[in-house]
Formats: sequence, C-alpha cells, structure tokens
Amino acid sequence: MLPRKDLFELPEGVIYLDGNSLGPLPKGAQERAMRTISQEWGGELIRAWNSADWMSLPQKVGDRIAGLIGAAPGSVATGDTLSIKVYQALAAALKMRPGRKVILSDKGNFPTDLYMAQGLIKTLDAGYELRTPAPEDVADAITDEVAVVMLTQVDYRSGRLHDMQAITEKAHAAGAVMIWDLAHSAGALPVDLAGSNAEFAVGCTYKYLNGGPGAPAFIYARPDIVEDVEPALAGWLGHAAPFAMDPAYSPAMSTERLRVGTPPVVQLSLLDAALDVWDGVSLSDIRAASIDLCETFIAEVEARCPMVTLASPRDAQQRGSQVSFAFDPGYPVVQALIDHGVIGDFRAPNIMRFGFTPLYIDQADVIRAAEILETIMTEGLWKDPKYHQVSKVT
Amino acid sequence: MLPRKDLFELPEGVIYLDGNSLGPLPKGAQERAMRTISQEWGGELIRAWNSADWMSLPQKVGDRIAGLIGAAPGSVATGDTLSIKVYQALAAALKMRPGRKVILSDKGNFPTDLYMAQGLIKTLDAGYELRTPAPEDVADAITDEVAVVMLTQVDYRSGRLHDMQAITEKAHAAGAVMIWDLAHSAGALPVDLAGSNAEFAVGCTYKYLNGGPGAPAFIYARPDIVEDVEPALAGWLGHAAPFAMDPAYSPAMSTERLRVGTPPVVQLSLLDAALDVWDGVSLSDIRAASIDLCETFIAEVEARCPMVTLASPRDAQQRGSQVSFAFDPGYPVVQALIDHGVIGDFRAPNIMRFGFTPLYIDQADVIRAAEILETIMTEGLWKDPKYHQVSKVT
Repeated sequence: MLPRKDLFELPEGVIYLDGNSLGPLPKGAQERAMRTISQEWGGELIRAWNSADWMSLPQKVGDRIAGLIGAAPGSVATGDTLSIKVYQALAAALKMRPGRKVILSDKGNFPTDLYMAQGLIKTLDAGYELRTPAPEDVADAITDEVAVVMLTQVDYRSGRLHDMQAITEKAHAAGAVMIWDLAHSAGALPVDLAGSNAEFAVGCTYKYLNGGPGAPAFIYARPDIVEDVEPALAGWLGHAAPFAMDPAYSPAMSTERLRVGTPPVVQLSLLDAALDVWDGVSLSDIRAASIDLCETFIAEVEARCPMVTLASPRDAQQRGSQVSFAFDPGYPVVQALIDHGVIGDFRAPNIMRFGFTPLYIDQADVIRAAEILETIMTEGLWKDPKYHQVSKVT
Repeated sequence: MLPRKDLFELPEGVIYLDGNSLGPLPKGAQERAMRTISQEWGGELIRAWNSADWMSLPQKVGDRIAGLIGAAPGSVATGDTLSIKVYQALAAALKMRPGRKVILSDKGNFPTDLYMAQGLIKTLDAGYELRTPAPEDVADAITDEVAVVMLTQVDYRSGRLHDMQAITEKAHAAGAVMIWDLAHSAGALPVDLAGSNAEFAVGCTYKYLNGGPGAPAFIYARPDIVEDVEPALAGWLGHAAPFAMDPAYSPAMSTERLRVGTPPVVQLSLLDAALDVWDGVSLSDIRAASIDLCETFIAEVEARCPMVTLASPRDAQQRGSQVSFAFDPGYPVVQALIDHGVIGDFRAPNIMRFGFTPLYIDQADVIRAAEILETIMTEGLWKDPKYHQVSKVT
C-alpha cells in the first residue's frame, strides 16, 4: 500500500517534489550508518572487511538494485559515480565494435553522459564522433556507422520517456551496442532490463532509490557478454583475485570486473538500508500511482496557472515520474515555492521540474503544491528580489 | 604533543598497527556524519547543497589535504577512488608527451596502480608499454622513451621509501612527467609536493588520514600545468560551469577539472571531520615519533623472534611509517596476533606488516606488541588450525 511516508524522515511542512534529484532520508538509513561507523569501523577496525562483511556489500547492494530494474542477480556492480559508469560502458562498447566510429546519443541527454563521451573520444584520439540528434530523431539516426547508442531513458528536463524496447531492437538490428542510463528510471517505473536485451545499463541511486547525497552508482552488463567486456578502468576490485596482489590484471569472470577501487562502505551501507523501503513494493503500483499524481498535478496547475506551459509529454505513457513546466522566470518561481514549502527544482534555461514519488507523496500533497504555485503566480510573490539571487546549485 | 589517543575511538585491549590500511575512527567523525545525514540530508533535503554548502566540501577537504602534503590551496581535488585518480593522472600525462610510449613504474607498486595503467594501455591501443623494473632500478630506467614515471613513494609491502626529489629531477631531466602515489605518505611523513616539482600526485585518505572505509581519494596537479591537463574522465563536476548544463564539455580552469561526478557527501563529511585531528600537529614531529616507534619495534622483535626476517629497509631514512617482517607462515601468525589484540596485516606471499601511527600509538604499545608476537612465536600458538582459515581480506 502506498504511500509509505512513515518509512521516511520528512521535515514538517514540506512537500518534497525533488526526489528525482535527491531522495529523502529513509528512517532506517541513519541507524545503519551509525552501526557501520561506530560498531564496524570504530569497533572492528580493519577486521570489519570480514566480520561485518564489507567485502560483500557492493555485490549485495547490486543484487538488490538488479531486482528493481529487471536484471538477474550478479549482473549489477555498484560503486563510483554515474559518470564513471558511463565511461566504463562506453569504453567497453567501443571495443566490442571495432571499425565503427560513432557514439549516438541525443541532445537532451544529461550533460555528464555527453561529457564523458567527449572525454573518452579525446582520450582515444582515433576518429570517434559523438552524434546528438534531437531525442525524437534518435531512432532514425541509428545507422551501421553507429558503434553504440547511449541514451537516458527518462529525459532529466522534460521527463520524456524513450521506448527502451524499440530503440534497443533498432540498435541491435543495425549492429550497435545499447547503453541505457536509468538515472531517472530506477525506482520510478518498472524496467525490464533483461527483457530489453540491452548490453549495458548505468544509473545512480540518490534519486528514486533514496541512497543519500553522493550515493554510489551502478552498472549492468548483460550476463552473456560479460566475458567480452574489456575494463578500461581496470581497478583491483575488478580483478579475478584482488588479494593475490598479482602484478598483472586479469578481470573477474562476472560483472564484478566493472568494479574499480575500494568501495565507499559508509555510503553503500546507507544505500543498503535505504533499499529496505522497497520490500514488498510493486513497481507497477508505483508507476500507476505516479501517473495519477502527475495527471493531477498537470490538471491542477493548468487550471490555476495559465501562464506556464507544460514541458513534459502530455501522454502519461510517454513520460517518466516527473512533470516540467516552462516559464521564463522559472528560477525565482522555484525559489519562492521552496520558501513556501514546496521543493521542486529549476533546470536552465526555463524549466520548473517536479518529481512525483508515490512512496512518500500523495494526492493531497499534489493539490496543495498546485495551490501554493497558484498563489505565488497570481500574487506575483516570485518577483521579490530575494528569489532572484542565484545559488550554486539550482 | 603526541600521542593524541583521546581524539580516537579505540577499542579496549587492542593495539592497532594497521592504520596504514584503515585508520581508526576519530571521535568527531561520527557526530559529523550524524549531522550530515540527519540534519542536512534529512532536514534540508536538496537544499543542503547550498544551505550546508555540500557544493564546496570537495574543495574545502582538498585544501586541508593540500596542507598536509606540501601543496598550495586549490591544487588538490577530492573524490572517487585512488584507482580512478591514477587513471586520470596517467591519461593526462600521456597526452602531455605525445610520441613517447613508455609508462615507467616499479614491480613493487601497489597492484591497482599497475592495473589502471594496463587498462589505459589496452583502451588506447596505441602501442604504449608499461615497464616495471625492481624499485632500486627505476632511476636508471628513466630514459627519453619514458612519457611518465608513476611511483608509489612508500612501498606497501616493505615500506621502502623512494627519493621523491631525486627521482622527480631525473624524470624531468629525461623529459618525462612525474606522478607520485602518496597512499602511504599522506599523514605518515612530511611531503614537499610543490618543492618536488612533480606534475601529479594521487592518494587515498582512509589510511593515515583516517577518513573511514572507502573514503574519497585525492589528486594534485601542479598549478602551472593545470590548463594543459586534458581530463579523460570529463565529468560534469569538472566542468567550468556544471549547472549551465551546456552540452559541450569545457573544463574548469583549475584542479577542479579533475573532479568527475557527484561528490560522496557523507564520506566527505566524515573525512572533513577526521582531518580535525591534524590541527596543530607537525608532520616533522609525526615523522620523528614514527621513526622512534619503528626502531623500537625492530629492535624488540629481532631480540625476541630470531625466526623472522626484517623485510623493510633497516635505515629509517629509507623507510616509511611501517615495518614488515618476512616469515613464511606469516598469515597464521598475523591471525593469531589479531586474536591476541595486536592488529597488523599480512600481504602475500610472506609479509607481516605493521603500521606505526604516532597519533594513537606509543612506545608502550610497541613493546607490548613485540611481547605478544614473541609469545605467539615461541609457544607456536600460530599453529592452531583456526588461524589458518583464509578470509576474504587478509
């Protein structure tokens, strides 16, 4: 049954519509962090790698994430950041298609995905090219020049949803490798990763998975190709036998080869505890509730605030778990909303973005948020100079 | 004044000689983690990036580390793992020496440094070669074929210390770029990074800097070359304007370009608090005390346990802050020591390794540790089968 607000520490008087940027604190997570820091690190010291089984934590957490994205146990490795995981997937994919020189993404992809591709291309210095057509033109841009198609399923600005199955099929028909970035998908909607047959997926865990600020990322490699994956970032914890201290790298015979360095044990423990909120939750139920929340918000905002323009697909089937509205002075409006207890965020140049997370948001929250937006808009509260001051993170 | 045992949570009855692997819990760190998790994440949610200044934390922590390794403020970036930082430094260094094809390290370097070089070489597929002579032969192996010399200052097994100044000068005379791995140096001995004139340094913070399991790593780039550093891992937080969401990567005009993804805020907060123990501590005093502790341990063990062989340089000036003894059944001896309250570690094939950290270890601890080792050796306690069981992390 949704919501499960009692499982989260939510500040009084706040309607939190930014779980697509940073999920809130699950109640069990703080206690778990204390145990990891005080009892395990403090009390066990180096022994905790064995006695508290820190060594298995990355794999354990990976298996739990696998269960939320339609992947088999053992096929998801955790650690590092999403940027690093993008690089690993891209570098491995290019090696799998020698002779092909095009990385295909879309111009709406999250910047770091595009940046990592640009950095890899410069590093390789071998004639690779990044193509970024408009999202709606991606499918037609998949030609036999394309080595790898790398897309984020849910657009971070608009919430537009790519058709994972159709694009993956098209990529494969053209002989390309498929990489999905699930940053705004994991925990937001059902994902059938194994069913899509994509070779790689990556994602972060601090959004809908509520792992906390800077929580570790994940990477999936399709089990049947793992042994063809050449790790560019050949770190010791991806080695077949890390503690043999062999001077020659030889990769683990599993997705573990996509691990790199020493795991961030404290953040992994927080994430592990955060994943408890998913016990017994169906992602189909989450998706249905999310669509209801989004539809309500769109209807309420459009009825109350004619000056804003829906910047997300109107068709719920084409949309992730967020709703965006375009409004040129969107930045001060979002600051005014935050000041009035409704936390959304702003993405340049003019997008007011609201995430809907049925674990802790209900219909009453959504209607109240629309009412507050209406007040801010119709009374012009956003014009107060204090809302125009630009902060580091918008 | 040393030691400062009162600043650490040290379990009763334990003599901890493994701070070179995982430093103990500083008392302020747990409270800080609680604040970050509960008040900042829990209470401020996404707003904490500004209100708790999470955005500045990587730079703030970098500046504190810079102060401990003889680097200028602004020259150290934090995040990721040491393995990732090695890759960044290596990839950038190779770009700075087009035409040269040799990465020179030594065969005693920590495996992940060598593995990351191997992974980069395979990824580039452009005829690069990793050479790993014996540590004592490195200086003579620096020829004009060498693009980059990458060495760990303190050997993780033996504690042997490379001469940073002399080798850097030799590398530069041959036209090579110099990268120092300070994993076993930072917080263990005075490092004059700026004075060495090395282009890059990397290190980890969970050893002598006590940042906790999986604490973020650091990377230094010499300020005058920063603008020539081409980031292979071109993540959004190394961008000149991360929140402009520009589709084209353009690097920050500082060491910040070596940041990659979203910072691990909780682990960075722990590390920031852990660095408080260095306030008012002189690394020259640390070094002097460490040498005294090591000399005492060597003398006591050699007098008590003739069956072990010193595997570290006898000359304190040639040795970091650890002492290793070779003994073929070293593994069960170390397990027996741990069981008797003396925590050291074992490194294959036969090295018993003991770290000496004057912040929380004193002469009485050292003598007591040697007495316990003597008992285990002379009474053959290590022969108990329970000490021969191999755990995941040795």
